[in-house]
Amino acid sequence: MQCELCAPSGLDILYQDEKLYIILVDEPHYPGFCRVIWKEHVKEMSDLDVADCRYLLDWVLRCERALRAIMQPDKINLASLGNVVPHLHWHVIPRFSDDAHFPAPIWASAQRAGKTRSMPDLAAQLRLALTS
Amino acid sequence: MQCELCAPSGLDILYQDEKLYIILVDEPHYPGFCRVIWKEHVKEMSDLDVADCRYLLDWVLRCERALRAIMQPDKINLASLGNVVPHLHWHVIPRFSDDAHFPAPIWASAQRAGKTRSMPDLAAQLRLALTS
Repeated sequence: MQCELCAPSGLDILYQDEKLYIILVDEPHYPGFCRVIWKEHVKEMSDLDVADCRYLLDWVLRCERALRAIMQPDKINLASLGNVVPHLHWHVIPRFSDDAHFPAPIWASAQRAGKTRSMPDLAAQLRLALTS
Repeated sequence: MQCELCAPSGLDILYQDEKLYIILVDEPHYPGFCRVIWKEHVKEMSDLDVADCRYLLDWVLRCERALRAIMQPDKINLASLGNVVPHLHWHVIPRFSDDAHFPAPIWASAQRAGKTRSMPDLAAQLRLALTS
């Protein structure tokens, strides 16, 4: 079966190295939504050895720090689900009290239309923050 | 404001030490749903220093390993959200393809009634696995 995370295309890549890549998710209602994707096709965090687990989580937290510094969200949501695409990846989602789902998770029913936040230079700012 | 995770009561504690505690969540449709709760009232992972981050994540992954060994779920879901209760905690959720929401996250609308799994000695097995 073809795995969409093994053969990515058309992604806005913020960072990559031999182990992982980080993309900016195209979700107009959730600017700054990042995904940290492990390159090797493994299913669970506990399929990685300790060093790789730490490496991946260090990058997840680097995303969190960058998003907090640039966007000052009300909350950061972190999640590794992978029920639909069982290829290890993390969602790093800046949340605002006036977004469409707050305080529910973004996977719940929307509670309001949600405020639109336009940040045209966000990808550039994130690229810089992730590598500095 | 009183924080319900600062003053927990009536919880099924699987493990605790000076830094964190781990509970078995009372969700009949999601047996094995564990929550790893940092004792100090902080909001985000990146409010912790590197050593504490790793310590907390090591326990989250220890939960994941214990749940996989005992329950053989189809997937593990990990999440740190905290929009409602902004006191750092992690959800570790064993997922099965016949549970109420699969493959959606458990916070989405239910897709079916969901199979009930009765595991009367689950807490005891988890306590043993977490500390061995």
